[in-house]
This record gives sequence, structure tokens and C-alpha cells, in this order.
Amino acid sequence: MLTYYPYIAANFAETTDYITVTEKFTGKEYAKVGLATSGLLEMAISEAVTAEEQMRSLSSFSKSKILKYIADTLFDKREFFAEIIATEAGKPLKYARIEAERASQVFQIAAEEAKRIHSELLSLDWFSHGTGKEALIKLVPSGTIAAITPFNFPLNLVAHKVAPAIAAGCPVILKPSVSTPLSALELAKIIQHSGLPAGGFSVLPMTHETAKPLIEDERIKKISFTGSPQVGWKMKNECGRKKITLELGGNAAAIVTSGADLNEAVAKCVSGAFAFSGQVCIHTQRIFVQRNLFQAFLTAFIQRTKTLNFGNPLDEKTDISVMIDEENAIRVEQWINEAVRQGAVVVLGGARNGSYVEPTILTGTHAEMKVRKEEVFGPVVTIEQYENFDEAIDMVNDSEFGLQAGVFTNQIDEMNQAFNEIKAGGILINESPTFRIDHMPYGGVKHSGFGREGIKYAIHEMCEMKVLVKPC
Amino acid sequence: MLTYYPYIAANFAETTDYITVTEKFTGKEYAKVGLATSGLLEMAISEAVTAEEQMRSLSSFSKSKILKYIADTLFDKREFFAEIIATEAGKPLKYARIEAERASQVFQIAAEEAKRIHSELLSLDWFSHGTGKEALIKLVPSGTIAAITPFNFPLNLVAHKVAPAIAAGCPVILKPSVSTPLSALELAKIIQHSGLPAGGFSVLPMTHETAKPLIEDERIKKISFTGSPQVGWKMKNECGRKKITLELGGNAAAIVTSGADLNEAVAKCVSGAFAFSGQVCIHTQRIFVQRNLFQAFLTAFIQRTKTLNFGNPLDEKTDISVMIDEENAIRVEQWINEAVRQGAVVVLGGARNGSYVEPTILTGTHAEMKVRKEEVFGPVVTIEQYENFDEAIDMVNDSEFGLQAGVFTNQIDEMNQAFNEIKAGGILINESPTFRIDHMPYGGVKHSGFGREGIKYAIHEMCEMKVLVKPC
Amino acid sequence: MLTYYPYIAANFAETTDYITVTEKFTGKEYAKVGLATSGLLEMAISEAVTAEEQMRSLSSFSKSKILKYIADTLFDKREFFAEIIATEAGKPLKYARIEAERASQVFQIAAEEAKRIHSELLSLDWFSHGTGKEALIKLVPSGTIAAITPFNFPLNLVAHKVAPAIAAGCPVILKPSVSTPLSALELAKIIQHSGLPAGGFSVLPMTHETAKPLIEDERIKKISFTGSPQVGWKMKNECGRKKITLELGGNAAAIVTSGADLNEAVAKCVSGAFAFSGQVCIHTQRIFVQRNLFQAFLTAFIQRTKTLNFGNPLDEKTDISVMIDEENAIRVEQWINEAVRQGAVVVLGGARNGSYVEPTILTGTHAEMKVRKEEVFGPVVTIEQYENFDEAIDMVNDSEFGLQAGVFTNQIDEMNQAFNEIKAGGILINESPTFRIDHMPYGGVKHSGFGREGIKYAIHEMCEMKVLVKPC
Amino acid sequence: MLTYYPYIAANFAETTDYITVTEKFTGKEYAKVGLATSGLLEMAISEAVTAEEQMRSLSSFSKSKILKYIADTLFDKREFFAEIIATEAGKPLKYARIEAERASQVFQIAAEEAKRIHSELLSLDWFSHGTGKEALIKLVPSGTIAAITPFNFPLNLVAHKVAPAIAAGCPVILKPSVSTPLSALELAKIIQHSGLPAGGFSVLPMTHETAKPLIEDERIKKISFTGSPQVGWKMKNECGRKKITLELGGNAAAIVTSGADLNEAVAKCVSGAFAFSGQVCIHTQRIFVQRNLFQAFLTAFIQRTKTLNFGNPLDEKTDISVMIDEENAIRVEQWINEAVRQGAVVVLGGARNGSYVEPTILTGTHAEMKVRKEEVFGPVVTIEQYENFDEAIDMVNDSEFGLQAGVFTNQIDEMNQAFNEIKAGGILINESPTFRIDHMPYGGVKHSGFGREGIKYAIHEMCEMKVLVKPC
Repeated sequence: MLTYYPYIAANFAETTDYITVTEKFTGKEYAKVGLATSGLLEMAISEAVTAEEQMRSLSSFSKSKILKYIADTLFDKREFFAEIIATEAGKPLKYARIEAERASQVFQIAAEEAKRIHSELLSLDWFSHGTGKEALIKLVPSGTIAAITPFNFPLNLVAHKVAPAIAAGCPVILKPSVSTPLSALELAKIIQHSGLPAGGFSVLPMTHETAKPLIEDERIKKISFTGSPQVGWKMKNECGRKKITLELGGNAAAIVTSGADLNEAVAKCVSGAFAFSGQVCIHTQRIFVQRNLFQAFLTAFIQRTKTLNFGNPLDEKTDISVMIDEENAIRVEQWINEAVRQGAVVVLGGARNGSYVEPTILTGTHAEMKVRKEEVFGPVVTIEQYENFDEAIDMVNDSEFGLQAGVFTNQIDEMNQAFNEIKAGGILINESPTFRIDHMPYGGVKHSGFGREGIKYAIHEMCEMKVLVKPC
Repeated sequence: MLTYYPYIAANFAETTDYITVTEKFTGKEYAKVGLATSGLLEMAISEAVTAEEQMRSLSSFSKSKILKYIADTLFDKREFFAEIIATEAGKPLKYARIEAERASQVFQIAAEEAKRIHSELLSLDWFSHGTGKEALIKLVPSGTIAAITPFNFPLNLVAHKVAPAIAAGCPVILKPSVSTPLSALELAKIIQHSGLPAGGFSVLPMTHETAKPLIEDERIKKISFTGSPQVGWKMKNECGRKKITLELGGNAAAIVTSGADLNEAVAKCVSGAFAFSGQVCIHTQRIFVQRNLFQAFLTAFIQRTKTLNFGNPLDEKTDISVMIDEENAIRVEQWINEAVRQGAVVVLGGARNGSYVEPTILTGTHAEMKVRKEEVFGPVVTIEQYENFDEAIDMVNDSEFGLQAGVFTNQIDEMNQAFNEIKAGGILINESPTFRIDHMPYGGVKHSGFGREGIKYAIHEMCEMKVLVKPC
Repeated sequence: MLTYYPYIAANFAETTDYITVTEKFTGKEYAKVGLATSGLLEMAISEAVTAEEQMRSLSSFSKSKILKYIADTLFDKREFFAEIIATEAGKPLKYARIEAERASQVFQIAAEEAKRIHSELLSLDWFSHGTGKEALIKLVPSGTIAAITPFNFPLNLVAHKVAPAIAAGCPVILKPSVSTPLSALELAKIIQHSGLPAGGFSVLPMTHETAKPLIEDERIKKISFTGSPQVGWKMKNECGRKKITLELGGNAAAIVTSGADLNEAVAKCVSGAFAFSGQVCIHTQRIFVQRNLFQAFLTAFIQRTKTLNFGNPLDEKTDISVMIDEENAIRVEQWINEAVRQGAVVVLGGARNGSYVEPTILTGTHAEMKVRKEEVFGPVVTIEQYENFDEAIDMVNDSEFGLQAGVFTNQIDEMNQAFNEIKAGGILINESPTFRIDHMPYGGVKHSGFGREGIKYAIHEMCEMKVLVKPC
Repeated sequence: MLTYYPYIAANFAETTDYITVTEKFTGKEYAKVGLATSGLLEMAISEAVTAEEQMRSLSSFSKSKILKYIADTLFDKREFFAEIIATEAGKPLKYARIEAERASQVFQIAAEEAKRIHSELLSLDWFSHGTGKEALIKLVPSGTIAAITPFNFPLNLVAHKVAPAIAAGCPVILKPSVSTPLSALELAKIIQHSGLPAGGFSVLPMTHETAKPLIEDERIKKISFTGSPQVGWKMKNECGRKKITLELGGNAAAIVTSGADLNEAVAKCVSGAFAFSGQVCIHTQRIFVQRNLFQAFLTAFIQRTKTLNFGNPLDEKTDISVMIDEENAIRVEQWINEAVRQGAVVVLGGARNGSYVEPTILTGTHAEMKVRKEEVFGPVVTIEQYENFDEAIDMVNDSEFGLQAGVFTNQIDEMNQAFNEIKAGGILINESPTFRIDHMPYGGVKHSGFGREGIKYAIHEMCEMKVLVKPC
């Protein structure tokens, strides 16, 4: 069995405790992973702080070269990474490949953005006492960053924190999910040879208890967290003077108007609903279809969902596989059953087998059911009808969350109304809410998050504004 | 009778030749205006060049204050200016008032933009030999500007050149139309007390012959011209090392799709077709209506046009009045008659009385008729039908010109196709092509112009980029 | 005696409890001010939340007009406001006048920035799956804002929160200092007639206890606080999901190199040290002078300080007056005495008389004395010498704070080194750290703050990024 | 002998006339190059125009991929290109290698900039009639571009036109110098396999006579010319409606103040004076040294110049080699001799041998001598002294040209004065005027040029602003 070690300041470190990472589909033991101890975490923090000055002083040329090396190596090894992702996360290979390629692109974009970090030259002579002066405004690195990432994109969500941190000139200490730490530790092997200063990057699989200093230690200047709302918001109030970015989840919705292209809408919504068994922050959980299109949409949606192949994620033909663990599968099953008891109708799926939950389509749901109100994070979608666009928007907004929303329409007025009135971080025309391009601003309002990622936007949130006022 | 004098470097100068400016509606003599001689022009140029250094060194605070004074004074005297415009240009008071208010706003925006002239702080360490260096990039004034303006917006088109010049820190020598020089000379009276350095602004009504040095003299660094394509393009090849901006005309088109709001489309297109008798660079000259809406559109268009009141421009109720002179009215009449001979049908208007041409609606025209192909610059509109959107775009593009085009639609795909495929400087959704907001970029492609105006955009074209490379 | 009432959603409200605001110099009762109750605060919050949609929908034209009205009215009444500030804060009239004028300018700038809120048009076709798509990125208002302001700039620090909130489209509930609430309540009288939607602005003088919902209530989306580090940082960890900006204080330093212009450096540092008795967040508290200039600087500094006139703040000739209250004066006196016991030398001042503390110059201090290490917020300055520039930078950085630092030098390399190595939000060349232009980014690092103000920058922090992904 | 053919729309074409390109150092025949006929040029134009739509529609993803392919291939073959440059231009290998690497970088930067072409999202509701509207402002390709390049950077100056054109989406027709067309034709071999649409790039070595349509044909929308002022400015007035960018030359100056680092200043100025025998647009031709440093500077300058090795450009140790042809060498010799007759003193060099001119240092010159006033474009530098900084600036400005100027100083005030008062496109602190980083804005004022290059800046000048006004 493979053995992995915590990566601390350019070295893989021996440790005392080990966990086992399983192959999610078969349940077999796949790799042994050393857990970081408090002592190792202290070492990582201390090395990171020591590296701050060196990281800050890197020319954009150097940062760009390091990031490009990582991007190119990831690209060369993308098949290798896809298999690791498929194995440790149970993600079908077709999606795992996309993730590996996207992670490479994230480093590539960061290599370019490292040279283009926002700055301003501001005239100060707007008022008489500023005559003869100007301000140079730069973004300078905030300092050491704690990155905490979930199991569902074990490589690309890591990339979305590590790549901007390097571009910004911030050392970063990563706590990956203990379920899926292998992608991050393999990434560390690449970064080890990238030319990054030693303390610039560490990866420490560890328990929440051990990880506490990431939240509490004053030497950490910023937390970048992707995970559950409960954990995230608690962290915000325990993090002292730190900056924080929270990428949490939601119950993302799509509106399908009668003017939509039916085939396109169905195809994109099925994918949004069931890709990686709905274990995606912007999983398409709620679909609202205009009344006169509802029946046709539902029929086509069921039909297309039926074509999804269940199987081993390492099989090229697999569309859907097991969930991350049985505990979550059971939870999803319970939510479905509860919804049914409350009056919902299962029009497809609904069954569980071990950690596999069938792609499940519900209708006849109402807003207070868990499958509508909470983040289901499983292969469950609810499809309901609406009368007019105002009503559809109200249904979308009837949620504590607000990450992204998709609207299938060809009308300018509906596009504008959706953008103006839907409370979410992103409104996507003719896409399901599950659409994301890595360089666009990404993040939620309401309970869905705090701050924005998207490489350039993540870089900004890892920096402080610094001003030089000088004669001119 | 009122007497006006050329304004040269803060003084009104005696001169030898005088012209008479008439009240366009009545034809009565209204004011005597002194023409600048070559000697006076030389003095204006020389004073402008002398003022360059002082203009360049003005703080944004000072420029802003000067511009705000002009804006506020224009606003206070807007009724006075509206009457002058109505009188010297024959522009109905309702439009003249809008022009006066817009001119005030142009100076107000320039007062704000003067503080926000584009600059950049550029990291140079993208390559190893730039390590430790950065570039401060500023826009610095190009030098003395020659502004040449037409009769149709005797105040606001002057504002669009003078306000950005002051904001940029460039002295400006204005040659207004000899038909309508009074607005500009009244503006000079305001600027005289604005605190602008003496050589910073001159207004010289003069003959084309006298004005030649504005084109040829090497001390002039930029020409900003609004007028006819023939004159403009010739100027471009005679202006030596100067920069040049040309705002010429066109035969602007509107597309009205079957998804358009009929009333809105008719109202905006009637206004676009006949406001100030079509003597507007972005006059709505060609309207293409989707077949199934064509008849309804045409009927409503005729009906609404019939409600336009002809009269003295100084009368509040007047919608349409005389053209600038009989010569142009005769030309327009001839073009209408020629179109009729070539097969066009006059569905309304078509007659001329002195310098008044009735609002004229033609249909059954083809692309080679002068009323379609050339810039009619009179109260004439052609309305034709089209089958599908591709065809409509081809009809719009079948022109030597490309200033603006309006598209009445509520469809996202038509909006995008129009923007991607219509060859024009601006595409306006649910507006006639005659729509302009003063701070948006404005200017044409093909034979319609060269460069852009719109305050901020005009400022940029009046400046040069200058770079400071320094250690950092 | 004048009576003031809490201002809630366009009305001044009766209340049950009243406090007395004294004339700080004479100690006389000056005005009776109604304290808001919990019920009134609930009403203010509820009205603000109700106004959110209306505020969000304001055109930039409307916001600009409202802000301009406030700016112009403040300008017209600037002498009136200066007297209120002088009276309630004990601020010498010469500084109070500057504050009133600056507050007017802050609203003026906000009127301009309201039209220029950052937005982006981002091409998404960087990757194949973004082909044919683009993103419109806008900043949209975060929602209701709680603004909490201190006594030292009772008008301008209010302006720095209220003006950007209006520009951003956010309702704002202001808790002014109970010591100096009159300027804010007088500002409310202006805003009442500005056209701002009713729930858009409220001013509630109240106790900390009553104010708790501003921190804890989920309907408040953002806190903008200026005040003490202790209170500010505590707030950050109690504010739930809110955004927060903290403008705290520090122990700002100036470096005076041997290449500095002695007279300029002395004049600016004396002003930075003693303006408003040092009760300024960026008060010049620590001055480090290069050895060969030290004696000359100290002599000139003492001499110039001696010329400061003590007196009634309402007297035009007064340079320095009483502190805000005797409690603070006693604290300052104790710190001075403690420093002396620890070895410091008082070279001027040092005495207290009631709430007046003489301008006090200390030397022979060390970094651990309260007068060096803590924020003195009183008329005390420490002046020490240094050998070389590296050492000076270390001395500046030897602090928990990092708001601004001034460096008097004519050398490019020293300017660059100061900017690169001093840990502060702003580095000012040839200015004391007390220099601020209202539109520049302003805010600290380390314990000095979180986030940035400066109108445009404050607007950004009051907004969320929202993305529209659309076909193109 | 190698044979090269004109490259037209993805094919190398047979032709009738051939010229011989010599190895400049030995004078031996090196390659036979086919000259384009009028027919071939017509074909190239026609193919380019046909390709416009396809080029315009390329996604940024595609453009970026094409450009990256070119960049990477150039990088791989950089040694091959360095040898071609050394051979056809006589440029010492050490400089030829830098040129080849820079050309690769120019394509790399263009690959990144292609994704970041400037766009704006502009709110139109600054005025009431713009309420509910916004403008999307994009840069769209201008159309077919004629690029005309000189002998001195036969690869990198080609890159500076071709790379931005591809990024902008403009087809480009290149006329390389007939002296040095091989680098461009080898580049064509790479581009042939890059995926660029066929009509997107053509290279036509041809006579000026044949090339006339590049200037006169209306289908060409923009000229990008690098070469002599005489040719460039004439072109500007013959180019009809085209846009034009002119990168001409000058007599660039350096100021060396007494505060400069002597060794650094000497090293950089020697390199600026003699690199590629001064055949560089920003060749350091005039050096002004502060009086008290003058003698030391001159001595060190002579000494360092003496260490330059003359030899075959293909020899690694060669610092300086022959000029491009004997005709130019004779001209330079004549200018030196004329200067001597007019009173100048040759302190080093001055002799000619065939097409080799020794590195020549003159002093005792005055501003009217050709070696000071004209662009010498040869290995000649003049070194004079000045008293105070005002005088130095006057000496720099006493020229018809204004491309770049270098200032060696450590003083902030001198840096600022130089930037404010020197009339040039770029002011470089502690660099000779010969310094250029490829992504910085580059171009001159006065007779030195028109417009700016620098990838991003060149892209902008190859585009038109296009506006979409839409409801929002």
C-alpha cells in the first residue's frame, strides 16, 4: 500500500499517526496517510512565517515561472491525477479528467495574473493640499494563509487556493479533507520541484482538533475555507484579526422559461443535478419550469436521467457512482423519505444501495422540505412548475442560500429581471447554476459564503492595499 | 443689432470683416459677427502655444474648478442659450433647451473626469531585466488643439471639444460654423471669467481659407473636427504630424423586429427621423421593419408624424421648423424627387416651402437611391420591410457609413447578432440610432469617422501616453 | 438650551432619556440630546431594511443628486458646522473649519463616485467551455450598514461612512459618539431634505448596551467602525455573518533623514503632533531623526511648538485647546509621568490643567514605554535619533500598529526601501503620518485596522460582487 | 544557396524576381529571396480581407493557443533564429540571442493579452434619459493591417506587429526589410503550422514601388510602420482613411547627475551607445554629464569602450561588428568628419573600414552638428557637460525628436522634474534611453513617432471601440 506523509516546507515529514484512505467505490484500503501532529503544524506555521519576506519579494517573473512549472507538470500528469481523484473521491473518470485539466489551467491563469496584480496611480491634486502629490497604490501580500478544502474537488479546490496564494506572494498551509488528501499530497510532489521557497507551501492532513491553530494563531493572516456553512460561519467568529473567505454551499436553482431551448435546458440541468452525485457546492437542486413547458421538461429530464450509467468511477463509461461515504448516502435517503412522507413524489430513483444513491427526481415538493431548504449534497433534484417569472424569482429567493442561479431564457427583460432580483452571487443565462469558469468571480451571498474566489479575485482577497504618497 | 467679435486669448478682438447671422426662421438679420483675419488666427495660435505649459501644469483641482464654473453658469443661463440656439440654428426650443442643458452637463462631467484621467502603474519585472523596476504611465496633454464645429449643435458639439480639452490641459482654438457662431461666442463670455489661462481658449469665426493654418501649422498638435465626410477625410491627409478625430455623418438605420414594443419603436423612430429636421449626424434615415409588423408600424409612424407641429422654433409648441438654409432644403427636395423618379413612394410629406421641408416618409426605396445611400441630413426617412434578421443586418450594413444603429428587440440572440455583425460604432437596443448619452463613447467606422468622443474618450485622444520607468 | 432628537427614517423622534452635551472648553451645558431606546433602534433597523430595495434601485443620477445636495448645503453652512465642531469637540476653529470643508468635499466626491462604481466586462472564452459567453460583473449594495463613529472628527468621519453608503445604495444607521453627537444630528437635518429615501439614514445617539443589535442583528449586513482597537477587534468576532471595516488607531511615526528640508519637516511634524491635541488616529507620536540632524531638528521643533497658542477653540487664534475630557487628560499625564520615571526627558510641556495637557515633547524614551508603544491620543510626541535608514525602519516597525508612516527624504532609494519595508497601510514621502487626502485609500495593518476607507474604497467594501453570465 | 519565397495566406509562392541577401560581415551571398509582385500583393490583400471575419470570430482561447504555439516554437528554435539574425543583420550573437528570446516573449505576452483585451461596462444612468440602460464597450479588430519593418531587429520588431495583430484578431501583411527578410520568412514557417487562419498572415519582401497598395488601398485599415521619420511621416499623409502607428527614431539622450552611480551609468551608457553599432531607434546618442562628474565619466567611458571586441557577429566574443552596409558606414564617417571640422573632438574611434565604423566618442560638439541634431544610427556618441539640472533638461529638449531619455540620479526631485519637463515618450531613471521592456508602452513624441506599441498598447491601436447600449 502506498504511504503518504505530511508535506512541510519542502519536505515530507515522518509522523506518528496514520489513517487509511479507501478506494471509495470498492471500499478497499488504498493508501496510508500520515496525520500531522501539533508539533508538525507548529513547524509549518513557523516555516511559513519565516518565508513571508522571501515570498513577498519574489518578482512576478519568478512567481510566474513557478506557477507555470506547476501548471505544465499537472497537465503532463493529468491522467495520473484523474485516476487518483476517481479513486479517492469516487468521482467518475470523465469528471475527474476535467478536474485535473482545470487545476492545471488554474495554475496557468495564476501564472499570468501574478504579473497583473491590481495597482493604481492616483492623482492627489483633487484638493489644494494634495497639489504636487500622487499616490501609488499596490496590493501587497497579507501574510501566511490557512487553506482548508473539502473532499469533492480534491485537486481543483486546492488549486483555487494555492495558485492565487503563490501569485499573491503568500505562504500557504493546506489542510485537505482527510477523506481525499492524496491529490493534494501528489501536488506537493510537483511543487517541491517548482522553485517555490521552502516555507511557501505545506500540506497537513490532520484532525480538526489539531488544526485549531489555523483558526486561532495570530501568525496566520487569512483563512480560505471551502466546506459546510456550519463550520465556515463558526470559524469566522473565532478567527481573531484574520481575513477570511468562505466558499460554502447552497440549494442552487434553475428557472426554465417557456422560451428556453428544451433540449439544451434538459441536458445542462441533468448534468447539474447528478454530476458527481450532486456533491458539488453549486449542485442543481431546485428546478422551476414554466407551466406550459413543465410536462415536456419533466418527461425529457426523466428520460435523459435514465441514460446515466452507474459503475466504477475508473470505468470510462460511468456517469454516476457512489457517494463519498455511506453515512452521507443514508442521510440523503432519509431526506428523500421524509419528503415523500411530507407529500413529495419520487418520479425516478429514490433507492440507496450501500453508499450509492440512485439519481432521484422529486416533484410535488414544498419549500420547507429538507430536499428544498437544506443543501442536499447528493443526487437529488426537485422539479416544480411556476406561472409567471415574478413567481419563479420568488421561489428561487425563498432560501437561506444564494450562490448561483441559472435561467434558461432568450428574453432580454427576463435576463435583466433575474439579474436584478435574484439574490445570489452569480446569475447564469442558459446554463444550470452548476456552471463555473475558473477565472470568473465565484462566491455566494446570504448563508452561501463570504468573499470571492476566481484566481484574480482570490489574489485580491489575499492582499492588503498599501499606499505610497509621493511628490510628483 | 448685436455685434460679436472673435475671442482671442481672453479678449474680444476688433476685426475688419463682418458677416451677418440671420434668424433662420424669419430670415431677418440677427447679429453682426466679426470674422477673424489671418493675423488674428496667428495671434490665437501663438497665444495658445504660449499657454501650453501653464495649461499642462494646472492641477486637476484647478481644471475641475474652471470646468465647474462653466457648467454652473451655463446651467443658470440655459434658457438664454436655448433661445440663441433656436434663433441662429432654427432649432425648436424644446430641442434647444435639451442642447443647452446637455452642454452644461458635458462641462460638469469634464470637471469630474479631469480628476480621473487614465493612468497606470505597471510592474516591469515580468522579465528578469525589469526586476526592481516599475513604470508610471500617464496621459499628458498633446498641445494646442484646433476644434472645428458644425451648425447643427452650435453649443453642445462645441462643449464636446472644449470641455475635454480643458480637462486634458490643452489650449483649444475653435472655428465655429459661420452660420451659427453665436452660441460659441456667448460661451466665450463665460469662459472669460472662469479662471482659464488666457491662451487656453479662442473662438474665431472665419473662412475656410483663413482657417488653413489650423490644418497645416505644425504648432497645432491635434484637430478635432465634426462635419461632413468630404471635408473631414481630406483634412486627415493634409494635417501633417497632427492627431485627428473626425466625427462625420452617416445614414443611420433602425431595425424593428416583430418582438418590438410598437409604440415605443414608433415614438423613438419618429423623433430620430425628424428632430431638428434630420440635421443630426445620427439622424434615423433608414428603418427596416420585420414583415409581419411592417404595415402596423408604417401606419402608426405616419399617424404620429402627422402630429408634429411646424412653426417658429421660438414657439414652445413647435416640433419642426425650417432647415438651416434654402440651399439644403432644395437639395433634399431634389433627392426626394429623384427617389420618386426611381420608383420610391412618398407616403407623407415631400413638399418644400422656402427652407422648410415637410417631414417626409418614403417607402419602396432601394439601396442605391441617394435618400438611402447618402447622408440626407434633412427630414426624410425611408421605411422598408425585411423577412429575417440576417437580411435586416445585411440591409443595415449595405452602406458606406457606420455610425450607430438601433435595434428594437427583446431577444438576447438578436441583440448579440446585431452587436457582432452590424458594422457601426454603436448598436443601441430599443433605441433609435439617434440616441446619445454624452458620456458614452461616440464615433463611427467606415466613412463615418475616425476616433471617439464622449468626454473621457475625447480626453484620451487629446493626450499622449508618457512613461516613467523607475526603481521600486 | 438646544434640544436634539434621534433621527429615524426621515423623522426626529421623541424619546425618554436625555443626555447633556457640554461645551468642552468651558464645561458648560450646551445641548440636550435624546438617547435612542431599543425600540427606536428596532424601528430604525426595520425601516432601513424596508428601504433596501428602494436604495438599491436608485439610479446613479439620483444618488448623485442627493449627495450633491448634501455637499452643497454643507458647504454653504460650513461656518455653522465649524462652530458646532469647535464647541462639542473642543477643536480649534481653524481645524474645525477644515473639517467642515472636507466633509462637504467627501459628499461631493461620493456624488461623483456614485456614477463610477467599479464594474467589469469579462470575456469567458479563455477556455473552450466558455466560448460564446461573457460575464458582466457589478458591485451591488450589501444591505443595511451600521456606522459607529468617534468624537474626534464628529462630522468628517461620519461623512466618510454616510457618503459612500449612499453612493453604494446602502441604508445606514449611525451611532455617533455620545460626547459629540451634534454635528451628526445637524447633518441629519440636511439629509432630511436631500431626497434620500426615508429609511436610508438614521442617527441614534445611544449607549453601548442599547447599540448591541448593530453588532448582533442579522439584518445588518456590514459594520463600519472607527474607534479604539479594543472595541473594534472584539466587535469583529461578535458580528456573525457581517462584513466589517475597522479604522482603529496607532502610534504613527515619522522618519526625518539628513536629506530632508528641515523647516518643512519641523512644520509638518509639529502640526502632526499637536493638531487637535493629538486626538487623531494618525497623530504623529514617534519621530526618528537621523543623528546629524537630530539636534537642529529638536531645537527647531521646540521653538515652533512654543508658538502654539492655547485658548478657547472658538477663538480664531487658538492652535491648541483642551482634550475631550479630564479623564483622558489625566491618563495622558500619567503616561508622561510614567515615561519620565522610566528615564524619558520632557523637553517641553508635560503639565496638565484640568482637561488641558500642554504640548509635550519627550526624548530619551524607549520602545516599551506607553508613550511609544500604546496609542497616546493626546498632545505628546517622542523624538529620538537613529544612525542609518535600516535602523529607522526597524524603529518604526517596532510597534503593534501600522496605520501610516511619514518619511522626509529626497532619495529615491530611501523612498523605495520605506515603502517596501515599513509595515503600514500608507507611506508618505515628505509628509508627517498625519497627512490624509480624503479620496486616497486609508486604513491600517497589524492592530491598526481592517479594510480601507477613502470613498471609492469604502464604497467597494459596502458592496458585493455580482456576476451575470450571458451569451455574447 | 538557400532560397526563400514570399509567404501568402499559408503558402510560400513562386515568383519571378529574386534578390540576394548577403552575410553582412563577410559580404558573401547567403540566400536567394523571391520578391513579391503586384499580383502576389493583391492576392495577399484579398486573402487577408477574406480572413477578416474568421479572425474576428476567433475565441480568445484560440488566439491564445496560436500565439503560445508560436512563442514556444520560437523559444525552442531561438539559437537557430539568433544565427539567422547575426548573419543577415550582422548583429553580434550575444545581442541576436536576446532578440530571439524577446521575440518569443512578445508572442507569449500576446497570448496572455489576447484574453484581456480592454472592455468596459459603463452605467448610462448618469442622466435621467439613460436610466435603465448600460453600455458594453469592447475593442473590436480594425481589419487588415500592413506592417512594415526595418532591418535592425528583423525578428523582434516583426513580433511587435504580428503578435498584437493576431491577439487583436486582425489579418496582417508584413513587408520586411529587403536587407534582412529571412527572420520574418522563417517565422512564417512556424506560423504556417500554428493554426492561424490562412489569410491571417503574409510576408512579402518587395520594393517600395510594389508595396504602394499597402499605403493606398482602402481595404487596408491600419499601417504599423517602424523605420525612418522621412518615410513614416510621408506615409501618414498618403494613407487615406487608415489608422497609422509610426515608430521612428531620434537622437536619444542620457543625463548623468553627480549623484549617479558612476559604474552603473558608464556600463549602461556604453551599451546604449554601441550595441549593434548604434543601429537602434533608442540608441544613446547624446550624454550630458554634470560638471563635477564629467571628467571621471569620460575617462571611464573611454576605458570601457576600449574593451569592446570587434569581430564576426557569429563569434560569441564579439561585441561590435559591421554596420548594415557600407553606404551607411560612409554616411556616419562623413558626419563625424563634419563635426570635427565644426570643432568637435574625437576622443576615441572615428575611423571606418569598409562597413565597419569604430565605436566613436565625441566631445566639444554643439547642438547644430549632425551628430547631435540628426539621428546618427551608427556607433557614435557625444558626451558633454552641464552645470545644473535645468540646463541638462534644456539640452535634452533641444531636439526635433523625443523618443526616450535616461536620467541617472537618486534624487526624487530630479526624477520628477525630468518626467515633467523632458519632452519624450519615456523617461527612464538609472537606465540609458536604450532601455526597453517589451510590454511597456513604447513610442515617441515630436518627430519620433505617432502612437504606441508594447503589445497591449499595440493591440489597442489595432482595434476600434464598439458600444452596445442595452436595457439593464
